Amino acid sequence: MRISIIGSGNVATHLAAAFKNAGHRIAQVYSPNMQNAALLAYHVGAEAIDDLSHVSPETDIFIISVKDDVIGPIAETLAKHGRLIAHTSGATDLRTLLNFTSKAGVFYPLQTLSKNKEVDFLTVPLCIEGADENITRQLVDLAQTVSNNVYQVNSAQRKILHLAAVFACNFPNYLYNIAQQLLAENEMGFEMLRPLILETAQKVQTHLPAEVQTGPAIRNDENTMAAHLQMLDTKPDLKIIYELLSQDIIKNNNTGHGHG
Amino acid sequence: MRISIIGSGNVATHLAAAFKNAGHRIAQVYSPNMQNAALLAYHVGAEAIDDLSHVSPETDIFIISVKDDVIGPIAETLAKHGRLIAHTSGATDLRTLLNFTSKAGVFYPLQTLSKNKEVDFLTVPLCIEGADENITRQLVDLAQTVSNNVYQVNSAQRKILHLAAVFACNFPNYLYNIAQQLLAENEMGFEMLRPLILETAQKVQTHLPAEVQTGPAIRNDENTMAAHLQMLDTKPDLKIIYELLSQDIIKNNNTGHGHG
Repeated sequence: MRISIIGSGNVATHLAAAFKNAGHRIAQVYSPNMQNAALLAYHVGAEAIDDLSHVSPETDIFIISVKDDVIGPIAETLAKHGRLIAHTSGATDLRTLLNFTSKAGVFYPLQTLSKNKEVDFLTVPLCIEGADENITRQLVDLAQTVSNNVYQVNSAQRKILHLAAVFACNFPNYLYNIAQQLLAENEMGFEMLRPLILETAQKVQTHLPAEVQTGPAIRNDENTMAAHLQMLDTKPDLKIIYELLSQDIIKNNNTGHGHG
Repeated sequence: MRISIIGSGNVATHLAAAFKNAGHRIAQVYSPNMQNAALLAYHVGAEAIDDLSHVSPETDIFIISVKDDVIGPIAETLAKHGRLIAHTSGATDLRTLLNFTSKAGVFYPLQTLSKNKEVDFLTVPLCIEGADENITRQLVDLAQTVSNNVYQVNSAQRKILHLAAVFACNFPNYLYNIAQQLLAENEMGFEMLRPLILETAQKVQTHLPAEVQTGPAIRNDENTMAAHLQMLDTKPDLKIIYELLSQDIIKNNNTGHGHG
């Protein structure tokens, strides 16, 4: 396929490279910053543009990978070319594109992507939605050329995934940060915790998290929790986080009902 | 070395196997439950006992790997043999052993260990403390026969590590559980999140967590956070967790001061 990439951020960069590696032709890369557009365009053999009026209609699909609040305005500008338009946002409804074109879809990679970190794109879950069955089919076919984990997901489900990703990725990373700071304040290096963090994530690759929950809260080990809270006496923010998560683990374990 | 293992839980099981594989001789395995003692003893070619009065002094070290509150009483019983005694607890002071013997130390594996999950023991951080330099040296030497990650850590530091492990392992696993439940309620499987969870842990193997923090809170993306909180309107427990962690991420990012 001929693919035009609108955006030059983390997702745009990884997607463009994956498409290129799968044998597709990247027609143009757009960014309002010409340096960013040129860098990505160079890597994927595309033309760089920094003005949407220079967008070429000689493409099969526009992939819009930009900040959520400019997806609509950009789609409005691109719609006149009559090509398929897909955005890559977890939190944005398909309707944002349907306001301007019926040839609309979503191509959402459920992964944390950084420009300077390689990732095996074949393992990245791609969540696909199309405005009709034909578009869904086209997008699924395209997705399957770059990933082995392709899912059809509607807008409501995709928003749940986006929320769940905050709990599964952003918040755990912040807790790693808290742990790293606790060690640093006591002259210990973060490398001591890295194997534990990796093993915790690896365990849930083959188990459900509830099956492998460990720690003082799930054992209702009140002595250890009291000792930990005392150690956090000078850190009220961490004390609240510790108490809240521990109490929720205890409660959820006792009721077995999940979160009400 | 001749090593006697007091306990048959997750840590005892992994340690005994690692020692055996490194060429040490496991003399005895004790558990109050003979079936548990026998199972582990069988795997490591040791004698199983379920009565501490049957403990043989023909050993070089007793490794006590039992619940924190029975470490002291068991050490008291073993002290008469005059052998080196080490416990494996993150939260227990060396003094708990020193009450009964001067030949005391700690051998704390900083890893989440489950009987039914293999782990490459060479990567497990082992945190060593000895009652004197000679004991520390002996324990470090022993530790280096089974792990490439051996650290000397005093009791105060070890308690910090134990607390940090709750933030780095137990709490992230609980957040994975929350994410899994959100998906399940919306007819989606946890396998969709597994690559994200693994990549999040892999990223901090080469970076500090603060360098790779992503998500709506670190961007101070108020629209997305408001939308997420609205989705959690029927789940007050999750809403509080979401708000608290997001606010702490924002605050910590703005001050750059860490946790006060």
